[in-house]
Amino acid sequence: MTAAQDTTSEDMPWGEVAPEAARKLLVAAVEAFAERGYHATTTRDIAGRAGMSPAALYIHYKTKEELLHRISRIGHDRALEVLSAASDGGGTPSERLAEAVSSFVRWHARRHDTARVVQYEIDALSEEHRTEIVELRRRSDAVVREILRDGVETGEFDVPDVPGTTLAVLSLCIDVARWFNVRGHRTPEEVGELYADLVLRMVSARA
Amino acid sequence: MTAAQDTTSEDMPWGEVAPEAARKLLVAAVEAFAERGYHATTTRDIAGRAGMSPAALYIHYKTKEELLHRISRIGHDRALEVLSAASDGGGTPSERLAEAVSSFVRWHARRHDTARVVQYEIDALSEEHRTEIVELRRRSDAVVREILRDGVETGEFDVPDVPGTTLAVLSLCIDVARWFNVRGHRTPEEVGELYADLVLRMVSARA
Repeated sequence: MTAAQDTTSEDMPWGEVAPEAARKLLVAAVEAFAERGYHATTTRDIAGRAGMSPAALYIHYKTKEELLHRISRIGHDRALEVLSAASDGGGTPSERLAEAVSSFVRWHARRHDTARVVQYEIDALSEEHRTEIVELRRRSDAVVREILRDGVETGEFDVPDVPGTTLAVLSLCIDVARWFNVRGHRTPEEVGELYADLVLRMVSARA
Repeated sequence: MTAAQDTTSEDMPWGEVAPEAARKLLVAAVEAFAERGYHATTTRDIAGRAGMSPAALYIHYKTKEELLHRISRIGHDRALEVLSAASDGGGTPSERLAEAVSSFVRWHARRHDTARVVQYEIDALSEEHRTEIVELRRRSDAVVREILRDGVETGEFDVPDVPGTTLAVLSLCIDVARWFNVRGHRTPEEVGELYADLVLRMVSARA
């Protein structure tokens, strides 16, 4: 995935959600959850932000949790797509890892509101939905773990603890969503490049 | 700071807060904010968790924001203490960095509820309190930045972007508070050791 490709979704956030009223409500829900937290937001707040009535909201979403689930599901699907595209894009394990980290970071920087909701409100999901989302996270973990294992096999990487390093790499990228807006002196592209270099150092033997 | 020393505060969380009623209310507030978010929590909820009346709460805290400010202030003071103790503890820049990272990680793992409130609810502070907390963060950043600069000077470290790497190191440690409880297959000590090793790799020249 190139920087040009992964900006497409920026032009029309949540473009995959139809009809337009359902998309507007989702955008409003992300804003409200990111600003005030899931538990402090009512469906009335969300409808109001979208310029609709609570009754209009219920046509598209039966509960507030259904909105959170849609947001989490789409967010995690996108995150997995971004990582998989980088991993399957060919090249050496170093190239695949650099691409995975930089594109994952760009996504968390650009979509920081969505990422915060997706990452911080997982406990508010129903048990069934939480299980589904945890399974998607396992698949994201597996993509990175496989790149690390491939690099260890080719001898490019020196990674004594593959699961622990996988966790650290993903955690480093995810936390970009927390700080990005606050100290935004760098572009998503610049953070992506810096982090790809730092992660390659993490998995390499020290001089 | 040794592992033994930094568990002291675990025996009596918020031991610095007196009288006992004020301490109990702070503990209840951390629990409630971590579970439901700041905006979804009322002072009535907090008083109820502490087994007190709302009137008893107002003797100690005039507003909900005052509780958040106390939590954020103490949390950030502790974080700065942990980092400064490691930095001032002597040894080479590598030893100081390893100690700073492992003790900071242990703190975020053990006190993950507090750390989440402190890190995620900063926008809910009043402007005056927010400015005060941002200044404490700048001082934490400065401690890590100085260790990195010292290591670059002695030639132990190879860090092309000191401010960016400082940001990444602290971010990696802070995000432990997000995932620690969920996937807790490792002890705070084990995560601290793993992360110290990964961070030393980040600041070293690649083989």
